Amino acid sequence: MKKTLKELAALVEGVILGETDFENIEITGVTGIEDAGPGNITFAVPPHLDKAARSPAAAVVVPDTVYQYPKPAIRVANPRVAFVTLLNLFTPQPDVKREIHPSAILGTGVSIGGNVAVMAYAVIEDGVTIGNNTVIYPHTYIGHNSRIGGDTLIYPGVTIRENCQVGNRVIIHSGAAIGSDGFGFVTFNGQHIKVPQVGNVIIEDEVEIGANATIDRATTSSTIVRQGTKIDNLVHLAHNVEIGENCFLVAQTGIAGSAKVGSNVTFAGQTGSAGHLTIGDNCVFAARSAPISDVPANSFYAGFPARPHGEWLRAEGAIGKLPELIKKIRNLEQRLAKLENKEEK
Amino acid sequence: MKKTLKELAALVEGVILGETDFENIEITGVTGIEDAGPGNITFAVPPHLDKAARSPAAAVVVPDTVYQYPKPAIRVANPRVAFVTLLNLFTPQPDVKREIHPSAILGTGVSIGGNVAVMAYAVIEDGVTIGNNTVIYPHTYIGHNSRIGGDTLIYPGVTIRENCQVGNRVIIHSGAAIGSDGFGFVTFNGQHIKVPQVGNVIIEDEVEIGANATIDRATTSSTIVRQGTKIDNLVHLAHNVEIGENCFLVAQTGIAGSAKVGSNVTFAGQTGSAGHLTIGDNCVFAARSAPISDVPANSFYAGFPARPHGEWLRAEGAIGKLPELIKKIRNLEQRLAKLENKEEK
Amino acid sequence: MKKTLKELAALVEGVILGETDFENIEITGVTGIEDAGPGNITFAVPPHLDKAARSPAAAVVVPDTVYQYPKPAIRVANPRVAFVTLLNLFTPQPDVKREIHPSAILGTGVSIGGNVAVMAYAVIEDGVTIGNNTVIYPHTYIGHNSRIGGDTLIYPGVTIRENCQVGNRVIIHSGAAIGSDGFGFVTFNGQHIKVPQVGNVIIEDEVEIGANATIDRATTSSTIVRQGTKIDNLVHLAHNVEIGENCFLVAQTGIAGSAKVGSNVTFAGQTGSAGHLTIGDNCVFAARSAPISDVPANSFYAGFPARPHGEWLRAEGAIGKLPELIKKIRNLEQRLAKLENKEEK
Repeated sequence: MKKTLKELAALVEGVILGETDFENIEITGVTGIEDAGPGNITFAVPPHLDKAARSPAAAVVVPDTVYQYPKPAIRVANPRVAFVTLLNLFTPQPDVKREIHPSAILGTGVSIGGNVAVMAYAVIEDGVTIGNNTVIYPHTYIGHNSRIGGDTLIYPGVTIRENCQVGNRVIIHSGAAIGSDGFGFVTFNGQHIKVPQVGNVIIEDEVEIGANATIDRATTSSTIVRQGTKIDNLVHLAHNVEIGENCFLVAQTGIAGSAKVGSNVTFAGQTGSAGHLTIGDNCVFAARSAPISDVPANSFYAGFPARPHGEWLRAEGAIGKLPELIKKIRNLEQRLAKLENKEEK
Repeated sequence: MKKTLKELAALVEGVILGETDFENIEITGVTGIEDAGPGNITFAVPPHLDKAARSPAAAVVVPDTVYQYPKPAIRVANPRVAFVTLLNLFTPQPDVKREIHPSAILGTGVSIGGNVAVMAYAVIEDGVTIGNNTVIYPHTYIGHNSRIGGDTLIYPGVTIRENCQVGNRVIIHSGAAIGSDGFGFVTFNGQHIKVPQVGNVIIEDEVEIGANATIDRATTSSTIVRQGTKIDNLVHLAHNVEIGENCFLVAQTGIAGSAKVGSNVTFAGQTGSAGHLTIGDNCVFAARSAPISDVPANSFYAGFPARPHGEWLRAEGAIGKLPELIKKIRNLEQRLAKLENKEEK
Repeated sequence: MKKTLKELAALVEGVILGETDFENIEITGVTGIEDAGPGNITFAVPPHLDKAARSPAAAVVVPDTVYQYPKPAIRVANPRVAFVTLLNLFTPQPDVKREIHPSAILGTGVSIGGNVAVMAYAVIEDGVTIGNNTVIYPHTYIGHNSRIGGDTLIYPGVTIRENCQVGNRVIIHSGAAIGSDGFGFVTFNGQHIKVPQVGNVIIEDEVEIGANATIDRATTSSTIVRQGTKIDNLVHLAHNVEIGENCFLVAQTGIAGSAKVGSNVTFAGQTGSAGHLTIGDNCVFAARSAPISDVPANSFYAGFPARPHGEWLRAEGAIGKLPELIKKIRNLEQRLAKLENKEEK
């Protein structure tokens, strides 16, 4: 694909900065700054503007606060959003045949919308509903009476167990397990008796779920992931968890049973949460932290057990000084003993 | 389904508490307290008795230590066990066709018991044995000469490699990998030479294994999970690990190679264990803890490296006081210097 | 299989230690010390020489620094390497039919080398290339235009998305997801807009990837795992990560986006790394540690945030002494107050 800078500027609703003839520059691809070669367009925001200027890129998308730039540039309100638009433009869409592959197995009472792809060896059980434009890759299993929305993308090897609901414009990556049994047992005379997990999982619209993530069905009622939340690889959500809207759950995070998480919450990588607690909106949990009790809205927490980030920083700093403190105390003890000896004399 | 309170009381071997005509109350479902609606029965133990009483539930299963209750109730010795019985009663069993699906591929010398389901696109290699009443979901792979017991349930996308043994009444959730190679290498002239992993995995009766969990085969001999142990999602057991009976391994726990774990041990969420160590019976490891040396039976450990829970609590408490301690030491230093100056004069 | 000690000594280029007639001893299997029975050969290096001598093993492979041994032995330069050779000798190779199974689905323009096995229900999309002698197990998915090298082994249920490259002599265990989308979003007006992940994954020669591990494709350019690196189960590599040659990434490790890791680096179990940082060659990260900034070559780090191991040990030791320190400070305060009182009088 080949586009002029003028065409790209129009697409991202930006303004070309520099010479008039820049608008005829031909762009053949879009990349990050580090991988940019001639013919590429990239984007930069402070403090990366200089780095992008020194790159071999043909042009750079910059914020509209930039009025001078040593390279052909397009000024836009939000360079990151423009970058996404350009990536979409230059990314050839994988060629998905809109058909039910003859090897896909569909149960009875399956309802499939228009323009759907169900690829080879997918198994769709009785009573499943699939919305328009949805694409289901090979080796996927969808259990009885589950409902999948429209414009949804399910990659290979995904399992969605019975009676679950997946919304519209959802993306589920390879190997994710949705609706597996929650981990519930009653211990009686030393034996662990399984508590039937008869609830389901509800995944709302625009959710993304990472590769090999696991989301357990509720004991009764539903495990819920609300609209716009993005879940990374190998994340675990236990039974009856509720995650609010537009959250980020970064890789290898685990949320224990019945935790209720507000909207716009970020769990950074390898974090966790104890079960049966409530986390307010807009909280951020730094990497590897994990709360063990309720967290008020708008908190920035770190450490384990998670506490306010400033407090954690002070404690971590103090731990670094500990060997020195031990020396100081020894010194104090010696000096004090000396004084006490003098007193006694 | 509709049952009278009288019928339910008989089933759970309990006694109805309250008015005589309570026995005709009709129950249409069973749920947790929070989700209870009219027509539902739920259960409650202290301190949740009041909460259940205030819920819209039609009736509540309570401990037999309760003699008065503001709502229709059934008194039983163990409300949790009764709850499991009721859940099983009201849960429609998924309709599993007992057949070898024509698309399932069976090798030579495969022995399959009675009343078994092998679903679509399962691949069962030569010499595999499967016991009576076992259900194998689609896209499952069972390697050469592995033996699967009776009344066992294997969900979609599970891989069980060659020569492994899975017991009776075992449940394996979607995407679990049993019998993958242990992580064993000999480093020689800077290259890592693979040590063939020629052992296997033995899963005893009544074990449950979570979604996308991984249990590696032994280098030689066996990786073993003993009877009644329950393993949650994304748990990792390395080669030659042995887990005793009736343990809990909660989500995202990882046990390193050759660790020997006793019976009735609980590893809470996101815990771990170093390799080549021995952990006694009845130990409990708090969330995110991990022992790095042997642990005696009946220990309650926390932190990393894991230590007795009380010790961990004291250390954590002390860390919280550190910034204050630093101030105190500074203050002591100043006061002491003042005294010393006076002395010198 | 039955081999004389003489034959085995020749195979591992070792020398029999002890009586001349030891060379006729018949060996029927090879095991670790703990599982050794009569007829077995095992290996031992200090401090395990005595343990092996007391085992029921028929013979032991020992280092050539050993000149006397109470049991038939073979002296070799490297007993571990000899052990691998013996394991390979005594391990029956699984019988893999070299054929494209009729149920495997191959797209157009697929190029397959000689002596390849593509097993049941594998799905190979258009334009894929597979080298000689490669074995692909059932339920594997290989996306458009991906290239798989020769002598490579891909176990069941693996997904390799489009445009990825996998080298020669690579092993990928069950359920691994290669080339899933990186976790990249631009947040705009509170919504998380997906950044298309249009790069790929490059797995070089002799890499091993564990069960249910996930390696995300780059946003643009490539996520790279270089030659000879070994990755354990449930490890996560984010987009644009680069891992050098001959590294070890032990189970449940997670490397965040764009981290660049040198060669011969070890990440022990349950470690992690922050994104966008550089880790030098030959670093070792102790179990559960995670760096949050650049790490120079040859570092041995522990803890979180990861710091030099000695420093971590001192801090951990000091934390253990904290309750005692608090007492000491209280004592110092009392004694000092007493002295100050005297002064005032």
